[in-house]
Amino acid sequence: MRRFIVIGHEAPTDPDFPLDDLPGGAGRLDLLCRSVTAGLLYSHGIRSDASVTTLHDDAFAVEFDGAALRGLHPDERSTAARFREALARVDEAVGMIEVDVAPGISVARRTIEQYLAALDLPLVQLHEAGDPITELPADGEYAFVLSDHRNFTPAEATVMESVADRRVSVGPLPIHADQAITIVQNYLDTDGYHRYG
Amino acid sequence: MRRFIVIGHEAPTDPDFPLDDLPGGAGRLDLLCRSVTAGLLYSHGIRSDASVTTLHDDAFAVEFDGAALRGLHPDERSTAARFREALARVDEAVGMIEVDVAPGISVARRTIEQYLAALDLPLVQLHEAGDPITELPADGEYAFVLSDHRNFTPAEATVMESVADRRVSVGPLPIHADQAITIVQNYLDTDGYHRYG
Repeated sequence: MRRFIVIGHEAPTDPDFPLDDLPGGAGRLDLLCRSVTAGLLYSHGIRSDASVTTLHDDAFAVEFDGAALRGLHPDERSTAARFREALARVDEAVGMIEVDVAPGISVARRTIEQYLAALDLPLVQLHEAGDPITELPADGEYAFVLSDHRNFTPAEATVMESVADRRVSVGPLPIHADQAITIVQNYLDTDGYHRYG
Repeated sequence: MRRFIVIGHEAPTDPDFPLDDLPGGAGRLDLLCRSVTAGLLYSHGIRSDASVTTLHDDAFAVEFDGAALRGLHPDERSTAARFREALARVDEAVGMIEVDVAPGISVARRTIEQYLAALDLPLVQLHEAGDPITELPADGEYAFVLSDHRNFTPAEATVMESVADRRVSVGPLPIHADQAITIVQNYLDTDGYHRYG
């Protein structure tokens, strides 16, 4: 199992955003849509052993679970429409209730700390100052946590320090969240850059 | 220098496509937009040593050159609008004339064979059956050629056999074109998975 958790600092918490302006009007939802694609899609298929969760404004978690997900398309706009479906149901997410929005898609009211503390896998923070990913055992199951286009805030960094098992870097350049997810997937797909056929 | 060339089998050749339906109405232009992003953008920056060319329907080449490009955004829709600008000028692309559409963006009338034959870098085909990318010297300059969501046609495969210097695989799973580009960039950025800091 591979989980990817993206902290969305400006991510919308209600469904009234324009599908025609994801970068501006929807708080960089374009970036979260690409992260969902990178975590869950390969060519003509959904990764059944992966999930992507986006954490919106330290308030809500939207989860896409590849084991149950159907009809996810690679383009940003159609994924944004799935986010809209999920965010239309936040009123039902009372207390710790997880609202099933569609097969493989759920929404819940969670702070970042609540969500991360409940994870059942070793937690790996993706961070430019971390150890090379090549030092991470490639046969493990992990939850990878990364930030969107902004850095982790000091408060988030403190949370990460208490919950993360390790920090890992995917390269010397600062890159987009979805690019980092693609690289992690490839590292695990190839058993640590060893299996290509 | 790193060049990426994506063969777009259903890519539009005129600008009259809907920005609201890139996967359907615009012949999978969503995929080409993501390929441009993967080839040219890192976090808050444009790669000045890279270019991405999309080959449309064996008829036109649209080139995005990171050395001169300005204001490229990561979302699909805004990149699609740049494609629209370029395709609005195809009538001016007579013979071998390359039409400068905007800084770093040009359009020209080229068959796949014409475009590839004129490249001045070792030509590497990205292909599932190729050698592991880890066998490619990471300090080289290359032009990488890959197909969109469809396989190379038999005619294209024949062209590739005559012009490609080698075939390289980025992993055991069939993945999206933009994902493959992201992996190649990371391989080169890290000097072959050795440099992370």
